[in-house]
Amino acid sequence: MEFSELIKTATVEDVLLSRQGLPAVRGTLCITSHHLLLSSCPGGELELWLLIRNVDAVEKRVQNLGWYQPPRSGGSPRDPRVSGSSGTITLRCKDLQVLQLEIPGMEECLNIASSIEALSSVDSVMMLYPFFYRPPSLRLQQGWHLRVPERHFQRVASQTSRWRLSTVNRDFSACPSYPPAVIVPAAVADDTVARAARFRQGGRFPVLSYFHPQTGTALLRSSQPLTGPNRRRCREDEQLLGTILGEGERGFVLDTRSAQAAKQARISGGGTEPKSCYPRWRRLHRALERGRPLQDSFSRLAEACAEPAVSVERWLGRLDGSRWLSHVKAALSTACLAAQCLDREGGTVLVHGAEGTDSTLLVTALAQLILDPACRTLEGFQGLLEREWIQAGHPFQLRCARSASSHARGKQEAPLFLLFLDCVWQLSRQFPFSLEFGEQLLLTLFDNAYASAYGTFLCNNERERSLCKVKESTHSLWAWLNQPEERHKYLNPLYSHNPLVIWPSVEPQSIQLWQGFFLRWIRPSQHLQEAWGEIRRLVQGNSSSLQESTGKRPSQPLPEPPAGTGDGKVGTAGTR
Amino acid sequence: MEFSELIKTATVEDVLLSRQGLPAVRGTLCITSHHLLLSSCPGGELELWLLIRNVDAVEKRVQNLGWYQPPRSGGSPRDPRVSGSSGTITLRCKDLQVLQLEIPGMEECLNIASSIEALSSVDSVMMLYPFFYRPPSLRLQQGWHLRVPERHFQRVASQTSRWRLSTVNRDFSACPSYPPAVIVPAAVADDTVARAARFRQGGRFPVLSYFHPQTGTALLRSSQPLTGPNRRRCREDEQLLGTILGEGERGFVLDTRSAQAAKQARISGGGTEPKSCYPRWRRLHRALERGRPLQDSFSRLAEACAEPAVSVERWLGRLDGSRWLSHVKAALSTACLAAQCLDREGGTVLVHGAEGTDSTLLVTALAQLILDPACRTLEGFQGLLEREWIQAGHPFQLRCARSASSHARGKQEAPLFLLFLDCVWQLSRQFPFSLEFGEQLLLTLFDNAYASAYGTFLCNNERERSLCKVKESTHSLWAWLNQPEERHKYLNPLYSHNPLVIWPSVEPQSIQLWQGFFLRWIRPSQHLQEAWGEIRRLVQGNSSSLQESTGKRPSQPLPEPPAGTGDGKVGTAGTR
Repeated sequence: MEFSELIKTATVEDVLLSRQGLPAVRGTLCITSHHLLLSSCPGGELELWLLIRNVDAVEKRVQNLGWYQPPRSGGSPRDPRVSGSSGTITLRCKDLQVLQLEIPGMEECLNIASSIEALSSVDSVMMLYPFFYRPPSLRLQQGWHLRVPERHFQRVASQTSRWRLSTVNRDFSACPSYPPAVIVPAAVADDTVARAARFRQGGRFPVLSYFHPQTGTALLRSSQPLTGPNRRRCREDEQLLGTILGEGERGFVLDTRSAQAAKQARISGGGTEPKSCYPRWRRLHRALERGRPLQDSFSRLAEACAEPAVSVERWLGRLDGSRWLSHVKAALSTACLAAQCLDREGGTVLVHGAEGTDSTLLVTALAQLILDPACRTLEGFQGLLEREWIQAGHPFQLRCARSASSHARGKQEAPLFLLFLDCVWQLSRQFPFSLEFGEQLLLTLFDNAYASAYGTFLCNNERERSLCKVKESTHSLWAWLNQPEERHKYLNPLYSHNPLVIWPSVEPQSIQLWQGFFLRWIRPSQHLQEAWGEIRRLVQGNSSSLQESTGKRPSQPLPEPPAGTGDGKVGTAGTR
Repeated sequence: MEFSELIKTATVEDVLLSRQGLPAVRGTLCITSHHLLLSSCPGGELELWLLIRNVDAVEKRVQNLGWYQPPRSGGSPRDPRVSGSSGTITLRCKDLQVLQLEIPGMEECLNIASSIEALSSVDSVMMLYPFFYRPPSLRLQQGWHLRVPERHFQRVASQTSRWRLSTVNRDFSACPSYPPAVIVPAAVADDTVARAARFRQGGRFPVLSYFHPQTGTALLRSSQPLTGPNRRRCREDEQLLGTILGEGERGFVLDTRSAQAAKQARISGGGTEPKSCYPRWRRLHRALERGRPLQDSFSRLAEACAEPAVSVERWLGRLDGSRWLSHVKAALSTACLAAQCLDREGGTVLVHGAEGTDSTLLVTALAQLILDPACRTLEGFQGLLEREWIQAGHPFQLRCARSASSHARGKQEAPLFLLFLDCVWQLSRQFPFSLEFGEQLLLTLFDNAYASAYGTFLCNNERERSLCKVKESTHSLWAWLNQPEERHKYLNPLYSHNPLVIWPSVEPQSIQLWQGFFLRWIRPSQHLQEAWGEIRRLVQGNSSSLQESTGKRPSQPLPEPPAGTGDGKVGTAGTR
């Protein structure tokens, strides 16, 4: 496939761009392989630079005014403005921005619309923008070789000798969605692990997610056991889980499905760990929504947020009807439960649902953020995302193929990662000192998971990334973010290290709508952003006055005034 | 009446005090004329110092365990702990705090409960604590003689000569609920004003609330005209309103009732300004809830906030059912409409409903905050409260007699002032730089309006204050707040002067629950308070480093670390 085949019309003049809360701009529209550009007419200033992958849905409306409006003298009948036909394209972006393009000429309008549709839904990963994007400030391969599992294991090994780094999955044969290196019990050999993998859906055998040094307990994750209707057993799986518990220790299996759903899964070959075979493990069920219901919830909430001039009753009714805040509450509660089992009950916890690639990761990642101050730094949080989302095999390509406008379309889309980011935002609101990063990082992560110039969130797992040579051929988002001139944008100026567990309130009265995300384009919280900018400047003032008095340079890069709305986004859509 | 007659039991030992989110304390309970004290047993440290006027409702539950538990040997049968009877008193405070006292001895419990009931509902204003409170740092009369209307008029007079300060009400004869000095059109003589007053309910003739220098337009307020079923007219009232509009100028009557309610008011002698008699005034109706529906809304919301372990659905349903956010939205929208008429339409606005003492003041005060940067400073806001709430005759004594627990009790209670404070909080959230004061001031104002050591919010109008000698015999809240060591607690560290009109978003998606008030005792936002404290320290750091470099003293008092939850309250209830 050549991009040029997909672009039916590359340039149209005299296009009117309208966006929420911004003045309309008239200019020349350009479609390139990966971007939609609009340069305003008089100065040729660039007004819009949109990654076409960010387009979630294209709506078009054409109207032929030619019947009513006779051609003016001197105009050629083919001049669309003279023939009077025109069209409007509405682009609903994955980041919830809505753009309107008024295009003179019906044919041009239809061509532009179908070009955007085709370009935004290119199937082949290796045709995506990250494989073409070469920012001058970065080297390829920079930021890719963080050796995240190895570094995580080093930390675990400094605290206990009961775990080891295994390369049983070095060729992705034991589990195609796991990374090559995983942490397993030291007492269990690789062949036992490989056999246990065959008893777990998709080969996702129990691996260490987090070791809690205060109580010496572990957080594990896996997929469901393939118990099936005949109540199959697997000695190796039982051995693996048995070894994890020391003398007199208890374990909890935290199943992210209801007890009934877990039981029903036996019909299709799945199931749960029966008490008789795993006698020291107690099962807890906490049903978390995922898949289609979660996707619908997201769509409904985004729609409700965009509805103008509505009454408070209707708004609260629609907010409630979307059930999004219930999902946030359920995710946070379940993560707290896992964290409590580890920290308060001194029990080891295995989290799984069915596939173990969605709600499971939501719970294990949030539990670590609650328990472990190391995950709450900017670097630690990137490591957590690498370990518990990207390398752990959350299928980003499938889940983030479409965003809120895909209502009732795809089958695999689900905003699990957005739900995670929302829960992190709730934590950051309740503990304004304890996370080193701020809202802007969470927004940037969402944007890049759905449409990016970087390869970090491409594909569904490490195996696919290896096949597509993502690490060799694209730039890492982390390399970009960690550049000193970028990094400071994502820092929380009020951060100070908090060594304690941060237990969030999960009462519904405490769960708030994440306005910074859901109302980002509708009611940009410009003043709040400026307030954070001001706080950042104050911190800078303090550290530079400190610098003057002590003669030392501040250890962190100096902040700049905050960027306007739409800026601070990495390579998705920028307004200049 | 002597206080001692009301106090049936002054001291009980071994009382257990429980409060939300705090450890229980055992100690000696003391009832004085105005306070409930609890000193913890071992050290005699004071744990609670509660103004009894702050008690909204007393619930008691006694249980006689004597039948089941025979007296131990050596104990006297009158020793309540031996006889085994005990009781629990639940105190629901006006500031929404809930306290529980477990009292040994059924008789003691009933005595304490009835003493608190009697003391908390003393009728006579001059028996209240402000008439007895003498803080050493303040002189009596300090802060009382701010000459608020006169100073306001000076400002108006510097901008226009069309208004004059009238003393037509110097003996409260024209309008018992107006202050002695009011601003009226320069072209209208006092006898005309006095006659116009007879045509307005409660004598509340149209007076100047705010002059908008940018457009030369005026915001006025009054009560409804006494049109009645016979469509009475009053030449003087027509003349007064006619004079206000210059050549070709338009006026708007912003009626805070629905068109239907305004029409129905004619049956009971009220009504509206008919088009035929006031040809240049256009009527706009914006129905704002007040009285009982507003009080019920407050009670329902407070109940919903206190309900533990509820689902998100139920919480959102109850939040919606309370309709409180709708009232906030309606108040802000109506204030924006008034501000728009003045600033955008260049029209003069007269606001009234029926009495002109409730919704009317809500609208005129909010409109000024939106339009006028001078009202957004700490000093300017105090002036606004004095002019538009206290001296304008909002009946604080009637409206704030009971708080949220008074569900279905009083007839005159209504949280108009809380609704105003909530709207101000919404403004401060949307414009984090533009108000010089922070949430703590709003909380302190609420607390003092409902139960106070100061005389500022006593009585219903200036006439009553004069009769009770409030200004001679009590201290002013403003005098207390404006002491340098107090003042800084109420400042917004991010404030910077914003000369523009601040137009809030009134979309329901933008209106938030004021958690700092409604969840103050349930889920204290300790971390958020600390964050503000940190920002305050940063600002201090900046200004003191500025001071070092320029050799100048900062013009504002230096901030201190923030006070804990429950502190920063003025004389209502303190925890030490």
